[in-house]
Amino acid sequence: MSLFDYQHFFTNELAQLHREGRYRVFADLEREPESDIYAFDHRTRRRVTIWCSNDYLSMGVHPEVIGAAREALEQYGAGAGGTRNISGTSHEHVLLEQELADLHRKQSALLFTSGYVANDAAIATLGRLLPGCMIFSDALNHASMIEGIRHSGADKCVFAHNDWRDLERKLASVCKYRPKLICFESCYSMDGDFAPMEAICDLAGKYNAFTYVDEVHAVGLYGARGAGIAERDGLLDRIDMFQGTLSKGFGAIGGYIAGSHDAVDYVRSFAPGFIFSTALPPSVVAGIRAALRHLKEDGSARQALARRAASLKERLLANAIPVLPSPSHILPVMIGDAALAKAITDHLMTEHGIYIQPVNYPTVPRGTERLRVTPTPLHTDEDEDALIAALIATREAFPRWREIMDSARPEAVPELAG
Amino acid sequence: MSLFDYQHFFTNELAQLHREGRYRVFADLEREPESDIYAFDHRTRRRVTIWCSNDYLSMGVHPEVIGAAREALEQYGAGAGGTRNISGTSHEHVLLEQELADLHRKQSALLFTSGYVANDAAIATLGRLLPGCMIFSDALNHASMIEGIRHSGADKCVFAHNDWRDLERKLASVCKYRPKLICFESCYSMDGDFAPMEAICDLAGKYNAFTYVDEVHAVGLYGARGAGIAERDGLLDRIDMFQGTLSKGFGAIGGYIAGSHDAVDYVRSFAPGFIFSTALPPSVVAGIRAALRHLKEDGSARQALARRAASLKERLLANAIPVLPSPSHILPVMIGDAALAKAITDHLMTEHGIYIQPVNYPTVPRGTERLRVTPTPLHTDEDEDALIAALIATREAFPRWREIMDSARPEAVPELAG
Repeated sequence: MSLFDYQHFFTNELAQLHREGRYRVFADLEREPESDIYAFDHRTRRRVTIWCSNDYLSMGVHPEVIGAAREALEQYGAGAGGTRNISGTSHEHVLLEQELADLHRKQSALLFTSGYVANDAAIATLGRLLPGCMIFSDALNHASMIEGIRHSGADKCVFAHNDWRDLERKLASVCKYRPKLICFESCYSMDGDFAPMEAICDLAGKYNAFTYVDEVHAVGLYGARGAGIAERDGLLDRIDMFQGTLSKGFGAIGGYIAGSHDAVDYVRSFAPGFIFSTALPPSVVAGIRAALRHLKEDGSARQALARRAASLKERLLANAIPVLPSPSHILPVMIGDAALAKAITDHLMTEHGIYIQPVNYPTVPRGTERLRVTPTPLHTDEDEDALIAALIATREAFPRWREIMDSARPEAVPELAG
Repeated sequence: MSLFDYQHFFTNELAQLHREGRYRVFADLEREPESDIYAFDHRTRRRVTIWCSNDYLSMGVHPEVIGAAREALEQYGAGAGGTRNISGTSHEHVLLEQELADLHRKQSALLFTSGYVANDAAIATLGRLLPGCMIFSDALNHASMIEGIRHSGADKCVFAHNDWRDLERKLASVCKYRPKLICFESCYSMDGDFAPMEAICDLAGKYNAFTYVDEVHAVGLYGARGAGIAERDGLLDRIDMFQGTLSKGFGAIGGYIAGSHDAVDYVRSFAPGFIFSTALPPSVVAGIRAALRHLKEDGSARQALARRAASLKERLLANAIPVLPSPSHILPVMIGDAALAKAITDHLMTEHGIYIQPVNYPTVPRGTERLRVTPTPLHTDEDEDALIAALIATREAFPRWREIMDSARPEAVPELAG
């Protein structure tokens, strides 16, 4: 027996990813000035149109956002200077937390360095410290929620995706005196479907559970002021804690929670992932605040995105491109195989100048690999024409794509209109 | 028995923090334009000098940094647009990772959204996936390393702080064929002392262990090009993986690891905290790159900081202010009681316009509560005079401070020169 060879181990594990077609190769994008969707890709050396951005509303390049960020950059410089507790709380942070609390009609909000950290830190803290807590988790919850649940050490019970009847069976089976946390998303990242939020809130009331909802893919995008699905459905006051991101609808980076003063203050006081991280740069915070103010007042970006998503979905279906019939702005085009998804996206990039990243395991289950197409308000009719033409041509170039779809498991086969 | 009352629980737990004097109240700082150290505090409504910033070299307000950040802000807007894998890798990210790899003389580097996430994600991934891994951890490692170790699920063995003899005893007791990870810091945050890095590297060689060192409080600050203690001590090639921050010596936000191509690629491919987080904004990345380039070439900020720290330490000791005799730029002034530390810092803020945050449990052990004073190159002789005078006056105003020091446990009592 020989001593453990670290380098050999790493090299072997990476080779396995290559063999499965799951090795991730990043694009290397130099965006055109003030454009969210056109870029030069240094890897393939060509101009591309980005169709997989999470800056859903293109707020990252909105002039009000860039102006506010620039002003705060001049005043504060590049960073916050410390953790929130140790010199890192600027007045910009205080004001943004007030804006976020107001957005969700809650008493308080708390910023984190990312949406991932917000979920991990908040859920781990609640699950660990609520005595005897049982966490009920939707089967398709995001990795950050799953990690938060794991890190909490609390007992966990997974309910079938969006199945409130299954949730009720499981809630009913647990001692009624135990604290219960129901963790779910309002809009699911990879399928683009919505949660039955009202039914879940009814169950939370009936079984005395605390509701924690991730509105990451909905904040900025849905509801009259952009507070998400709870606002759209009139349920803001029935959710105990909201979690959201500042990197998607609000165009920058960071995450947050919003809830009652004491619930938020509790997470602020006990979550290591919050306490020990440097605060977001004031310039980033100022840009986000401008995006938030804009989206509360002005729904035009939301409407433009909804129109583009509807038009694109209709044309994908009409052309028998296997898109899941999602009700949201997220358009999952199914492939069903990791290596094929990679080959198809490489082809789209090099032959058509269309950049869509393949989504593979562990982000989605094996056999449901997909292209996750996300339109923005900045995509034009010409961009849409080019995308549809490229997808049709690519389907002809890869007959295996259709074969897999014809023989795929039901969950990977959307019902096609065309 | 009544149903669990969530609000009541949160309120009670917070009341307990208040009773212990551990409830954290954040400052609310509006910094003066392009100043890292003077600010208006909205909470106390007065102008303050900041003496607890982690922007150690004031790079956050360096004109080259602000210029580069502004330029990238105009080009890219406020955000990266996605995770590194899904549209979030800008050319700025690629270039910064190359600069960081070059800084540490390694093949590769990888960016994270924070230093906390870098430690948590990298250590958890290595510890979880290296088969049968045992992690050796310094007793004073930062919370982020401790969480990473905990999240790895690997067996853990804590060695006495900076005690390589204890480490050797523990390494020798474990089967020689097991993978072993030694996790330590080069400069400890709260005591400001350095690790015996060469001795640890010798042991790693002898026992076939993988060395993982957190240089968070050293990068930018020590070594000819600012690569930290390993560079200063000529040990760059003997460390397997470096972890650093971009929020302290480099003035912004974010963290990274650097190491061999395959070791870094392995973490990139398997760490959920990396895979599922939105990338840092390109403008932030561009600012950091400017800071890094500057500090590789120009040691004047490092020298100015070292001079200010030496002068301050000498005067604190000469005036019998209980500062730990740290060899670094971090100057821990011991208090030894949470409520007193809070009272003293409130007094410094409101009476003297000096802002230093108290550091309490869980950041430091109970009974070793302290003020963590961190000078910068921007502090003037007048600022230093004002700080010394304020600390002397405060000591007279709080006789209990001296009483506690006189009766304190040895680890909380620095040997005073004055």
